[in-house]
Amino acid sequence: RINGERLWASLMELAKIGATPKGGVKRLALTDLDRQGRDLVVGWAREAGLSVTVDQIGNVFMRREGSNPELPPIVTGSHIDTQPTGGKFDGNYGVLAGLEVVRTLNDSNIVTEAPIEVAFWTNEEGSRFVPVMMGSGVFCGAFSLETAYAAKDTEGKSVRDELERIGYLGDQVPGQHPIGAYFETHIEQGPVLEDADKVIGVVPAVMGLSWYDCVVTGMEAHAGPTPMGLRKDALQVSTRIMQEVVKIANKYPPYGRGTVGMVQLFPNSRNVIPGEVKFSIDLRNVNDELLNTMHEEMLAFIEMTRVESGLAITIERVSYYPPCPFHPDCVSAVRNATAKLGYSTMDVVSGAGHDAIYAARLAPSGMIFVPCKDGISHNEIEDAKSDHLEAGCNVLLLAMLERAKL
Amino acid sequence: RINGERLWASLMELAKIGATPKGGVKRLALTDLDRQGRDLVVGWAREAGLSVTVDQIGNVFMRREGSNPELPPIVTGSHIDTQPTGGKFDGNYGVLAGLEVVRTLNDSNIVTEAPIEVAFWTNEEGSRFVPVMMGSGVFCGAFSLETAYAAKDTEGKSVRDELERIGYLGDQVPGQHPIGAYFETHIEQGPVLEDADKVIGVVPAVMGLSWYDCVVTGMEAHAGPTPMGLRKDALQVSTRIMQEVVKIANKYPPYGRGTVGMVQLFPNSRNVIPGEVKFSIDLRNVNDELLNTMHEEMLAFIEMTRVESGLAITIERVSYYPPCPFHPDCVSAVRNATAKLGYSTMDVVSGAGHDAIYAARLAPSGMIFVPCKDGISHNEIEDAKSDHLEAGCNVLLLAMLERAKL
Ligand SMILES: NC(=O)NCCC(=O)O
Ligand SMILES: NC(=O)NCCC(=O)O
Repeated sequence: RINGERLWASLMELAKIGATPKGGVKRLALTDLDRQGRDLVVGWAREAGLSVTVDQIGNVFMRREGSNPELPPIVTGSHIDTQPTGGKFDGNYGVLAGLEVVRTLNDSNIVTEAPIEVAFWTNEEGSRFVPVMMGSGVFCGAFSLETAYAAKDTEGKSVRDELERIGYLGDQVPGQHPIGAYFETHIEQGPVLEDADKVIGVVPAVMGLSWYDCVVTGMEAHAGPTPMGLRKDALQVSTRIMQEVVKIANKYPPYGRGTVGMVQLFPNSRNVIPGEVKFSIDLRNVNDELLNTMHEEMLAFIEMTRVESGLAITIERVSYYPPCPFHPDCVSAVRNATAKLGYSTMDVVSGAGHDAIYAARLAPSGMIFVPCKDGISHNEIEDAKSDHLEAGCNVLLLAMLERAKL
Repeated sequence: RINGERLWASLMELAKIGATPKGGVKRLALTDLDRQGRDLVVGWAREAGLSVTVDQIGNVFMRREGSNPELPPIVTGSHIDTQPTGGKFDGNYGVLAGLEVVRTLNDSNIVTEAPIEVAFWTNEEGSRFVPVMMGSGVFCGAFSLETAYAAKDTEGKSVRDELERIGYLGDQVPGQHPIGAYFETHIEQGPVLEDADKVIGVVPAVMGLSWYDCVVTGMEAHAGPTPMGLRKDALQVSTRIMQEVVKIANKYPPYGRGTVGMVQLFPNSRNVIPGEVKFSIDLRNVNDELLNTMHEEMLAFIEMTRVESGLAITIERVSYYPPCPFHPDCVSAVRNATAKLGYSTMDVVSGAGHDAIYAARLAPSGMIFVPCKDGISHNEIEDAKSDHLEAGCNVLLLAMLERAKL
């Protein structure tokens, strides 16, 4: 069993770096605070006797040797960068749970056959630099190192320069680092576990997602003198599409998701009929065929609305991640560990993307979820119970041991 | 008959002050550019032999004496401040049409019984300082001089200081200036005249308007991990109200208007379910009872939506102007003049507020509309035909003469 108090103490210690007045953390990727966070975690790793490798995109691997140096390591990890108004647990928990596993193995002088590694991936959040999940994305070849290096923040600072500046521009070629299996513990970032009063979420898969930008163009005009019949009100036409996004998602329970999260009006003035409305659409499903059906239904509805309204409507897909089923062996390792420990449990499909979906392209992977308060994440009030974090870490320990062998 | 070319030349000369690259004008109230515009118009007035009075809110009255000094003046006017991306005609036309009337009377050595005055009112647009129609509002006692003086722009500069700085803080107590009757020519700012191919709009009334701020509060949450059934999506609930605003307006043709022009989401992020949506509602009708019916129907729908959705919804009325019917004598003066001149004509209820609604609280008032291109105003591409502007000015001349007597 892992030491829950030690895990909690490490989480609170790391959360001091970039702590915000409202109890959250602001530690954006590749800032001075990120360097401080990285240095703290790497320091703890060295104290625990781990060797440290950094790759060219700044991913860090902290290694505990096994008895058989021929075997690839069993890896766990996540990220320690945060949202601008992020919490203490998102990502950080996954990294420190890995460290706690290592500390526990050290305490009991356990030698595994395969090496054990704890990783943290660069810029998972994507708040300062896009694309999101940058380190794991480069690692698995989803996009190139050059693409990632060229990404700039709003002040024009590049990923490459910032990696160099904070001392985390490593030598190792991303992806050359072998991985035998990958596990990631994470707060659920949703309300399902809490709602069902379960402690451990076994994650069979991560939903696929499609992101779109939709622009409806009407004609801006004065709200008073323009009769209703002569209007081209871009907002009114947009609201029909916004409602349909949710209707489509509701047609495909339990894993259909449809969200309009971002809306911009032009000119956005109280007495002007909106001439243009730009909004985002986020569709998700764990089944790629259903996700595609949702996609087709949405395009058909938009085309119908375009014809009926006579307004110009454009829709552009700006991102697409296919659903990512995790490896049956890793999923069952998590399931077995949970059963052995006697925690209440259920399967929870991850609705959010994680570094694990990129790791899964290279090695058998799996995830472990624990509840977070009110399902809230990406928020300074993000919270999780020490007991639940401890339980998730115990499951991680046993699942990794099943794969790494004693 | 007035001189259409001279009117056009004056409009183009004034439009040079604050001219924008796209052919519009940016001449915000009480800026240096407003001073230049005021000085130009006042200079022209003095050249035409008019005496000039400025009141304590910076309203300017330019007077041509009549044969009977006992009679109150017949006044025409409008405003010369513009929107940040305004056009050449909104307001400016009404002031320079008045000046052209005076110049025409001078050319023909016509002596009227009552004096003739041309006025321009301070800060009609309300872009830099709220409330809108400030000069005419203070003049008629709708709000106090102190309220207007205290209004500040985004840089913290006050109306009083800016009036003093540009040299237009006059002595006269607002409202002490007598008015026998008031006429205002204006571009329609809507598409009705152009759509019906008419030259002159006789304006029987200005619509009443109610402005509201509506706030729907749900719960922000991650768009992926949050199942559809556990969401409190503030945008989805808002779209129902946004659609109802238009449905209600459509129930009361031809003068019902319903517009949602301004929408703000929090946090406004692609993968976050909106936790709060704030939006404006603009309801108008020329009939106050119907406007009130629309108001009641909207409140009832919002209450129903609040109960049905379980989300918190607040609605606050932030402005209300009752409908303003113009004086039968002034409306018929405009109608007679139009008939005498043989212009094609129709009645057009003004959907937008104008200084004339405040003048109408003190004296018989009326308005004359001319078409503007595509009904567009408050836009740099605002445009109007020289012929139409000339026609409106001819109508103004005859209508004023009917009231001022020869
Ligand atoms: N975990 C997370 O927020 N990933 C970002 C992409 C997504 O919206 O799923
Ligand atoms: N003419 C004008 O735009 N007035 C402002 C108030 C309104 O929206 O009617």
